[in-house]
Amino acid sequence: MSYPQRVKIVEVGPRDGLQNEKELVPTDVKVELCDRLSAAGFPNVEATSFVSPKWVPQMADGAEVMARIARRPGTIYSVLTPNMKGFEGALAAKADEVVIFGAASEAFSQKNLNCSIAESMDRFAPVAEAAKAHGIRLRGALSTALGCPYQGEVPIEDVLYVARRFKEMGCIEIDIADTIGVATPQKVRKVMEAVAKEFPIEGIAGHFHDTYGQAVANVVAALDVGISIFHSSAAGLGGCPFAKGATGNVASEDVLYLMRGLDIETGVDLDAVVDTGQWISAHLQRKSSRAGNAIAAKRAA
Amino acid sequence: MSYPQRVKIVEVGPRDGLQNEKELVPTDVKVELCDRLSAAGFPNVEATSFVSPKWVPQMADGAEVMARIARRPGTIYSVLTPNMKGFEGALAAKADEVVIFGAASEAFSQKNLNCSIAESMDRFAPVAEAAKAHGIRLRGALSTALGCPYQGEVPIEDVLYVARRFKEMGCIEIDIADTIGVATPQKVRKVMEAVAKEFPIEGIAGHFHDTYGQAVANVVAALDVGISIFHSSAAGLGGCPFAKGATGNVASEDVLYLMRGLDIETGVDLDAVVDTGQWISAHLQRKSSRAGNAIAAKRAA
Repeated sequence: MSYPQRVKIVEVGPRDGLQNEKELVPTDVKVELCDRLSAAGFPNVEATSFVSPKWVPQMADGAEVMARIARRPGTIYSVLTPNMKGFEGALAAKADEVVIFGAASEAFSQKNLNCSIAESMDRFAPVAEAAKAHGIRLRGALSTALGCPYQGEVPIEDVLYVARRFKEMGCIEIDIADTIGVATPQKVRKVMEAVAKEFPIEGIAGHFHDTYGQAVANVVAALDVGISIFHSSAAGLGGCPFAKGATGNVASEDVLYLMRGLDIETGVDLDAVVDTGQWISAHLQRKSSRAGNAIAAKRAA
Repeated sequence: MSYPQRVKIVEVGPRDGLQNEKELVPTDVKVELCDRLSAAGFPNVEATSFVSPKWVPQMADGAEVMARIARRPGTIYSVLTPNMKGFEGALAAKADEVVIFGAASEAFSQKNLNCSIAESMDRFAPVAEAAKAHGIRLRGALSTALGCPYQGEVPIEDVLYVARRFKEMGCIEIDIADTIGVATPQKVRKVMEAVAKEFPIEGIAGHFHDTYGQAVANVVAALDVGISIFHSSAAGLGGCPFAKGATGNVASEDVLYLMRGLDIETGVDLDAVVDTGQWISAHLQRKSSRAGNAIAAKRAA
């Protein structure tokens, strides 16, 4: 095995994490969360979404969060932008990166975006054009790439189609997302290898959810293939809208602990993330991550 | 990657799991737990310990548990036996396998067994002799093989020493245990490869704790090396005596879900284990495992 020497960890807790927490989180807490995460050294923080508050009330204060966070030089702050209205918001908020998203599952696209995969791609074209015109980084989030709550298996051809469309639209990064956390390592390896033939491997991110306890193993499988960008959330914030009570994004603490064990540099201070995970978990009255709790317990002993 | 086509999963929840749960569990519940687990198809259930109730009050009813369980033909029921008194108990209880144990860490051995590693091995010699004389299977549990709460790193030579002693004493299986769950995959690979030079690989088991969220990834690393026996506990029962509030053994549901995803046969009915995990978790007022909760939630939806 030869792993990448250095990986980029994208902290998605403030967006993908909090969006799937039941409790509405005060803006102050969101701002502090982003600031703690950038101070811990995450090179990229997914800060919020510019979506209709009717769809996602948790993210209604996106503009305020972006205005109030302490922008750390060098940190990329990403925001989700489903349409031109979202893009205008992102532009006004001086986001460093806008994220467009599409499902690889036809059933998921129909049910959640109310259109086909191909149509969902067409809809993002103006956002992609605008990002290019304004010199803003563009990322494509490829959801249900490893399984779908409606159709189950997702043909690899559909994953590759979306990857190609994202590339044509100018995405410099795409994330292969196991939205419902069903994947196991061989599957991850297979899909990542296929995607790497369509998209530069250094721009492919693994976005794993820990719904079935497989996420850290899936990160290792992706490392095996040469993937060097991973998404995670402090304390494993979030949940699964398709399995109530299930766990959410893979925890940043678990991933950082893994990388340390594998001698892979991240530039992120694990201890600071443990503190942040404990703090946000206390706020939300939830348990933090396994590595987070174990490290905190060891310190207290 | 070529994994073994079939693995043996040893369910250790009734012993290693419950022993680390705070609440004293009624004998009835222990008996039902063992019976549900054997009915689910686990080929080997670690049922109890024959140790002094002064040391381990949770296991004081070991003889009663063994007397009352419905012995499933073909299932191996293992019990821990620290000394000849324990062995007599195991013999009277008609255990199929007795388990002796030693730490690979000198500091751990001194602190927990009050003797050196070498002395701890000598102490088990009479138990090993007696097991041979009575034709009972002998297993050696090799704790702190991947890290120690007192000395940190454990020299691989010390792991190999204990493995050799276990082999000389007639152990047909040894388990390489990450007692405090600190290992990451490269470390697991390295240690397993080294041990496989001293002990037949088909008799080496991986015993992982999920303290830092690495256990499923460590199982995969061991599979890579060719290990085909794994220990796990339903619902991830147990905890870590060295990190209060941390998680315990890797969950059987998470491991079985992994094996299904990798097309590796186990002979165990995952759905039955999910039920058992939900049932025992409700009894202990704790959360079940990730895969257990996700599968249960999906069913309820």
